[in-house]
Amino acid sequence: MLSARSTSTPAGDVARADVAVVGAGPIGLAVAWRCAARGLRVTVHDPAPGSGASAVAAGMLAPVSEAYFGERDLTGLLVESAGRWPAFAAELTEATGVGLGYRTDGTLLVGLTADDLAEARRLWAYQQELDLPVTPLRPSELRDREPALAPRVRGGAFAATDHQVDPRLLVPALRTAAERAGVVLVRGPVRALSDLDATVTVVAAGCGAAALTGLPVRPVKGQVLRLRAPGGGTPGFRHVIRGYADGEQVYLVPRAGGEVVVGATVEERRDTDVSAGAVLRLLRAAVDLLPELAEYDLIETAAGLRPGTPDNAPILGPLPGRPDVLAATGHHRHGIVLTPVTADLIADLVTTGVPDPLLAPFRPDRFTGPSGSVAADRGEPARTSEEDPWN
Amino acid sequence: MLSARSTSTPAGDVARADVAVVGAGPIGLAVAWRCAARGLRVTVHDPAPGSGASAVAAGMLAPVSEAYFGERDLTGLLVESAGRWPAFAAELTEATGVGLGYRTDGTLLVGLTADDLAEARRLWAYQQELDLPVTPLRPSELRDREPALAPRVRGGAFAATDHQVDPRLLVPALRTAAERAGVVLVRGPVRALSDLDATVTVVAAGCGAAALTGLPVRPVKGQVLRLRAPGGGTPGFRHVIRGYADGEQVYLVPRAGGEVVVGATVEERRDTDVSAGAVLRLLRAAVDLLPELAEYDLIETAAGLRPGTPDNAPILGPLPGRPDVLAATGHHRHGIVLTPVTADLIADLVTTGVPDPLLAPFRPDRFTGPSGSVAADRGEPARTSEEDPWN
Repeated sequence: MLSARSTSTPAGDVARADVAVVGAGPIGLAVAWRCAARGLRVTVHDPAPGSGASAVAAGMLAPVSEAYFGERDLTGLLVESAGRWPAFAAELTEATGVGLGYRTDGTLLVGLTADDLAEARRLWAYQQELDLPVTPLRPSELRDREPALAPRVRGGAFAATDHQVDPRLLVPALRTAAERAGVVLVRGPVRALSDLDATVTVVAAGCGAAALTGLPVRPVKGQVLRLRAPGGGTPGFRHVIRGYADGEQVYLVPRAGGEVVVGATVEERRDTDVSAGAVLRLLRAAVDLLPELAEYDLIETAAGLRPGTPDNAPILGPLPGRPDVLAATGHHRHGIVLTPVTADLIADLVTTGVPDPLLAPFRPDRFTGPSGSVAADRGEPARTSEEDPWN
Repeated sequence: MLSARSTSTPAGDVARADVAVVGAGPIGLAVAWRCAARGLRVTVHDPAPGSGASAVAAGMLAPVSEAYFGERDLTGLLVESAGRWPAFAAELTEATGVGLGYRTDGTLLVGLTADDLAEARRLWAYQQELDLPVTPLRPSELRDREPALAPRVRGGAFAATDHQVDPRLLVPALRTAAERAGVVLVRGPVRALSDLDATVTVVAAGCGAAALTGLPVRPVKGQVLRLRAPGGGTPGFRHVIRGYADGEQVYLVPRAGGEVVVGATVEERRDTDVSAGAVLRLLRAAVDLLPELAEYDLIETAAGLRPGTPDNAPILGPLPGRPDVLAATGHHRHGIVLTPVTADLIADLVTTGVPDPLLAPFRPDRFTGPSGSVAADRGEPARTSEEDPWN
């Protein structure tokens, strides 16, 4: 589609961009970085870079523990992208000189009560059927791995390949890398695709993609807490812990700097208010699983809006009838883990014009009805991925 | 001691103050206002006016429900000051033209479980022995008064004369009234009483009084939440609710603007960090008593430091051997309710030099040992007033 040669313009000429990316979150910035690395002239447009879902995201890279019933295509893409994360993180750190908080301690999956454990085991069995690496642990093994767990936690499993990164380090690093590669960040809103003057436009605007493209992307609210270990210490646990506590799902993500992210609700709402009930449920589940968290400082409560889609999978590729407009949105709960594969595949598509077979299940036209327009049910709440295993 | 005549200096002369007040919280500002109204020249010194305990305080005017075992003198002063509140509020509103959020809906005292109710009834019986107006309610009467209470709340009582005011309206109003009366606010720290040049000094510096005077005032940490009714509505309840929920004490103070204050912990700590465990306990108790609060926004978490004393009562009057230095501190959980009586009695003492008999139990020299210095146990944690009825 585009080659590096198309960027050769007379020196001093303010040339038309080869690629205009809408959205300076991790997806948009990584696409821009990858495109610039291929020699393309790239602009990224955002009134408030990094202020979307990624500002709240926990940064779990969890293809295994996020493998839910009925989402095989998505699981395949999560696994593919997680496999690209080590090299992606190394390359980004090399390009910027800053750490990303990328950690490979793995994820413990735990159930507080017998009922919780029974529910969790249903999902682990499914994940094992898919040959995903989930290893059930005996209670003694669980406590050996993480002594801080509450004694009444009934059981658990280990997902060694489910890692983490800190989105609040990732996004600035991506921005630095992109700018060093020549990407121009334009601070301002894009009200319509016709505002942009570029050969190819990539819409990586998260929930904002709906208004720009008509794609069925809807906000899915998530409330998240940030705690801090007392006295400036590091958290008393090292694994990401994903737990089921009296029917509540919660994850606990420890950072080297002492922060612990506790999340997250999944709500079909479009406000970003923090509710007392959500904070109560998250804290109760967190403290039930890991009692020492009661002594931690509560340093932040926040809510973000994930870009959800009818099938919980991202939307990647050209809009119907618009080969010059590529969607890279709808990543829902998976934006951070899917950043490397999205950036690689979209940059490949921009430069070659040929979609990678991996993109096939995620084409924008999967929602298109017979008329060629997007389906009438766009924006309708779908079952969230979390609802599958638990309801 | 001082009369208005002492302020008569040649016009244009920058005269020595008659009264220097240390601390621009509600106590200091009210003392200054009252002194200025008596014709005295008054300065108030504070690096950050209104930033102490009052910034976090809920503003309950609750002499009845705060009448604890073994604190009869304090209860007498609370009753006296609460009785002065209606006229004080009216006068302050008249002087400033702004509302204070002063509300007389009264306070409901409730117990969630049978155990909670049994504990509460012990205290109510004591309060009735003192002829304080606590009226036990039948469950149907309780629900008639406040239908939003959880159905499982076992029982309650009504303290009709326990009212509320909004400290975040009160303190700016006091500052306006004081300044209009001629008080000069000096923004800056007072490191030693010798820094001040005034005929009389009033130390109303909250926890800061310890360093200035050697009085046994210690910080008692309180964590407080602020919720907001969803959609800009008013809270679905109108009484202050003080509850006992599975052994936790909590109060819920509804404001006309939609805010609900949820408090407060009582901790022998001097940090102002907000802990996950405290937020969890407060929210759990609040939602257990009033389920609709789960739907409210959590808009603020904060911690403040109350000025506690060994006997939980304030310290009011001249320092031992220093008739020119008056303490007005150590108000602990009662600073807002005690503001009118403190201001009146301290202003009277400044102008007449004769202490009102009401001040007798609260003299600073009650902590003085035989040597004349303050007792060696200053700053030691005492039992808090909340521990009496519940442990």
